[in-house]
Amino acid sequence: MTQIEEVVMEIKVLQDILESNKEMAREIEDLLKENKIYMIDIMSSPGSGKTTITDSVINSLKNKYRIGVIEGDISTTKDAERLAKHDVPIIQIETSRYLGDCHLESSWIMKCLNKFDLKNLDFIIIENVGNLVCPAEFQLGDDERIVVLSITEGEDKPVKYPLMFTTSQTMIINKMDLLPYLNFNMEELKENIRKINAKLKLFYMSATNNDGIDEFITHLDKNIEKKLKS
Amino acid sequence: MTQIEEVVMEIKVLQDILESNKEMAREIEDLLKENKIYMIDIMSSPGSGKTTITDSVINSLKNKYRIGVIEGDISTTKDAERLAKHDVPIIQIETSRYLGDCHLESSWIMKCLNKFDLKNLDFIIIENVGNLVCPAEFQLGDDERIVVLSITEGEDKPVKYPLMFTTSQTMIINKMDLLPYLNFNMEELKENIRKINAKLKLFYMSATNNDGIDEFITHLDKNIEKKLKS
Repeated sequence: MTQIEEVVMEIKVLQDILESNKEMAREIEDLLKENKIYMIDIMSSPGSGKTTITDSVINSLKNKYRIGVIEGDISTTKDAERLAKHDVPIIQIETSRYLGDCHLESSWIMKCLNKFDLKNLDFIIIENVGNLVCPAEFQLGDDERIVVLSITEGEDKPVKYPLMFTTSQTMIINKMDLLPYLNFNMEELKENIRKINAKLKLFYMSATNNDGIDEFITHLDKNIEKKLKS
Repeated sequence: MTQIEEVVMEIKVLQDILESNKEMAREIEDLLKENKIYMIDIMSSPGSGKTTITDSVINSLKNKYRIGVIEGDISTTKDAERLAKHDVPIIQIETSRYLGDCHLESSWIMKCLNKFDLKNLDFIIIENVGNLVCPAEFQLGDDERIVVLSITEGEDKPVKYPLMFTTSQTMIINKMDLLPYLNFNMEELKENIRKINAKLKLFYMSATNNDGIDEFITHLDKNIEKKLKS
């Protein structure tokens, strides 16, 4: 019986955290609206290709828009270093300072926004911590949630980790170049996506080869422009 | 300033949870010792091959030892169903009942142990939630922590998610069959492992082809026997 009580306690605390996180996310939404900045939150399991995709997006759009990047990482600045070649402002959040936290929270994003020169930004990319579970629970006030799935992870991930897929608007199916070498059933993946969130906008990509990136860039370009003109 | 205080609060709560988790883990250790049961905790990112490996281990050892399985899953019983063909007791923990929790805790493992007929078990396999972050923080009272890394996830994971790799005794490097198709540097991975935890015992595997599984089975077999004779 004691054990059950412990579980209930934990949920209460988590709900309080989620509630205050949501409030701050709303403030972020207002701030972005005021400054006409489009913000995306890219999420996935570790090693699904978030940084490679972020790299390509910056490369394709940095001459058209003023871009800022927020990098979430457990314990290194490796991803930020990979992106440093682009001449765009990058803010690194190392979550290990907060006892190895497994997600980003809206209060930390707000701190980053306060550090950016918002008047001189059009587009912010958040690269979340590599984790298919916890980041899904924390709204960050962004305009678009993008989940990346590497096909090496299997067809069942949308049904096994539903919150990530129900709360995202966009999904990138990555590492398509490995399809001939995997026992992977694309129809089964699509069926699982339909079951969980039929509205998910899908992009097929092999980010390391730059295959399929153009369609995604066009999609982002359209969304950013819409926000700028709002 | 308020934001910083919030972060500190959260850490305090988490530390309390971790402390009571550790106490229960010690009780589990005693219980396993008393019953001469060897217990392993298999952890990894989503889709790294935990269930396929668990499947092979059960298949190879079920005629020699009395095996029990604890399956952690966010939201489905898919993994347990995959293992149901083996005639071994399986207990499923669906963590979504606890607000989509991202790890297993020792109190839940204790509940599972209380459901098992411990007098008739030699070996328990815990398949943790697919997550390279949170499960690392929660001791479960097991004899051996095994982290599985699919080489599709990249060479940098041990340094980017250090806690998982410092707290494990064993590491399975999986999906080796995909090596010819990836831009993957095995020496760099090994160097990263050495930096983080030079004592990690490494096994190279292609679990879907059953390649490299024998060495791992021999290793487990030896450890289980040692515990039985203790």
